[in-house]
Amino acid sequence: MDLFMKCAIEEAEAGLQEGGIPIGSVLVRNGRIVGRGRNRRVQCNDPILHAEIDCLRNAGRIGSYAGCTLYSTLMPCYLCAGAIVQFGIGKVVAGESTNFSGAREFLESHGVEVLDLDLDVCKAMMGTFIEKHPELWYEDIGDL
Amino acid sequence: MDLFMKCAIEEAEAGLQEGGIPIGSVLVRNGRIVGRGRNRRVQCNDPILHAEIDCLRNAGRIGSYAGCTLYSTLMPCYLCAGAIVQFGIGKVVAGESTNFSGAREFLESHGVEVLDLDLDVCKAMMGTFIEKHPELWYEDIGDL
Repeated sequence: MDLFMKCAIEEAEAGLQEGGIPIGSVLVRNGRIVGRGRNRRVQCNDPILHAEIDCLRNAGRIGSYAGCTLYSTLMPCYLCAGAIVQFGIGKVVAGESTNFSGAREFLESHGVEVLDLDLDVCKAMMGTFIEKHPELWYEDIGDL
Repeated sequence: MDLFMKCAIEEAEAGLQEGGIPIGSVLVRNGRIVGRGRNRRVQCNDPILHAEIDCLRNAGRIGSYAGCTLYSTLMPCYLCAGAIVQFGIGKVVAGESTNFSGAREFLESHGVEVLDLDLDVCKAMMGTFIEKHPELWYEDIGDL
């Protein structure tokens, strides 16, 4: 499997161990990881800490995002897609979009290249979580 | 002036005093302030702490955002507009959109009501800051 997606999955698994929503993310610039993060809504009691946002935060103030690719185990929602578009991140690689279709059209309409790896491991992890904790998942995507 | 916009301006002014980018935000639900925040990129060295994101974070996990209005001294960018759309916040009141046109069309295309107060005090504060610190402003909106 893609090494960077493997790291994003590790982040998601760590989040699950902590009692959180299992979504992980990695920011790559010119072939090097410059940030990684995971959804920490539950762990930090913080509604804006989606995996991609946590990842961008951990990457810090890196200046231009030219040459960056953002990996996420799940297709980004509008919050995270908005960050990607605003910061000029050119490419997104998602683990799956079966459990959540996200904001792919919005990303593409702003010139972001989107690749959906459609990975069974990501689909199973997220699908099981949503089945067990629907209240946390629907809170996370503002669908209450 | 609108009391809630006055509070958002107070947040922006506090940010300026701290050496930060002067943008403030307030979240109102059913006529009551449930969160307030300001851009803290500089203060916290955090690229995702736009004013609206800081405000949503400070509001915490409030459940449904039905009946919420987000005030901001400046028209929200795609990051913040993405949060507004994803969380289902129905209305945005902006202090101005002269210094930054933001993501108004995106918000409106997703059914968010947008009101631009076009306030001189907001335009002057932001315009002066951009003139003095263009590098911080263009970093904040990912335009490097």
